[in-house]
Amino acid sequence: LKRSHLKVRFCTNDSQKSRGELVGLLRRLGFDISEEEVTSPAPATCQILKERGLRPHLLIHEGVRSEFEEIDTSNPNCVVIADAGEGFSYQNMNKAFQVLMELENPVLISLGKGRYYKETSGLMLDVGAYMKALEYACGIKAEVVGKPSPEFFKTALQAIGVEAHQAIMIGDDIVDDVGGAQRCGMRALQVRTGKFRPTDEHHPEVKADGYVDNLAEAVALLLQHADK
Amino acid sequence: LKRSHLKVRFCTNDSQKSRGELVGLLRRLGFDISEEEVTSPAPATCQILKERGLRPHLLIHEGVRSEFEEIDTSNPNCVVIADAGEGFSYQNMNKAFQVLMELENPVLISLGKGRYYKETSGLMLDVGAYMKALEYACGIKAEVVGKPSPEFFKTALQAIGVEAHQAIMIGDDIVDDVGGAQRCGMRALQVRTGKFRPTDEHHPEVKADGYVDNLAEAVALLLQHADK
Repeated sequence: LKRSHLKVRFCTNDSQKSRGELVGLLRRLGFDISEEEVTSPAPATCQILKERGLRPHLLIHEGVRSEFEEIDTSNPNCVVIADAGEGFSYQNMNKAFQVLMELENPVLISLGKGRYYKETSGLMLDVGAYMKALEYACGIKAEVVGKPSPEFFKTALQAIGVEAHQAIMIGDDIVDDVGGAQRCGMRALQVRTGKFRPTDEHHPEVKADGYVDNLAEAVALLLQHADK
Repeated sequence: LKRSHLKVRFCTNDSQKSRGELVGLLRRLGFDISEEEVTSPAPATCQILKERGLRPHLLIHEGVRSEFEEIDTSNPNCVVIADAGEGFSYQNMNKAFQVLMELENPVLISLGKGRYYKETSGLMLDVGAYMKALEYACGIKAEVVGKPSPEFFKTALQAIGVEAHQAIMIGDDIVDDVGGAQRCGMRALQVRTGKFRPTDEHHPEVKADGYVDNLAEAVALLLQHADK
């Protein structure tokens, strides 16, 4: 893939890890990739915070804190939540809630809105559940940064200078990956790995432009078409 | 009040304390009251669990655990959440979530659905926020036991053998107390204490049948009418 003229961008909703950690993980899995090739919610959020002069109270995992190093968190005027894992204690949630309730115009930014994810130890509650808890308690609506938000996909496209209609998204989540990319004007392949479930191929609302058994098959398919 | 022929029932949404604790608290405040005069979500939930053969996984505060002493919690086929306070750790929430996801027909019972309450230390997240988190993560709808549910008010009326149209509810929450009681066919007074806010008197959806400055005024009013 790297030897072809195809441009590649890695888009993740992972909000527990910094780009450095993610790249380290992918390199160990054999991917030749650098931090500059990754679009992830944390740096996208930092961009938004800077543009709008927002100073966040952070309810995040320690692993991703380095991404927010340059952000002013004094006298917060918004709350940013990410997949904090064990960090979602009652005390931390209540603190985030209290910060929001003290604001005249409470702004809650959520890095993704996933319901849960799978670990070897079992299913794990994701940030979306805690986003809903704060939305309900405060009577507000969160701004979500990450897939399936169109802004997030556009950021990724801009980074490689490609138009939506020229791009193909490959992902395992039928709604957030495939549906999100399609709403953005991209074509989308679903891989039959990871989150994929057989029922996805008959999803009531989203239909992928194609299905592949794994990432290698998707890459082979792309290279085949690129050669023509 | 006790000397009149009026029948009295205390209805609370408190799900952190057992009836014993509640009565102790009220007695210290000068109320002549016994456990038998209290309608609270925990015993109402136990009734439902028994009727439907449900064995709960309990995510509750230690203070209310004694109310569930006689309930079979082995091999759970539902989840019961109450205001667990610090008990709402990530680990405990995730366990409740996993139990629900393993059930074919996940049943989630929530003792109240309050957004937050006020303590001297500040605003505190209530069980409703965590109910919403589990609803979203599991894609289900919880059954709420407590005000404003009509079943809850009816349980209280049955306990004293009074018809809704004969009863008057006195409470401080315009939606859950006043609105709930009125939907049940009762008349309702709002006290201008506790949760009361001046804007409640112009609430877009709920209008109390009367307002009183405090509980003493409400009692005086009732006795005055009862004497006639």
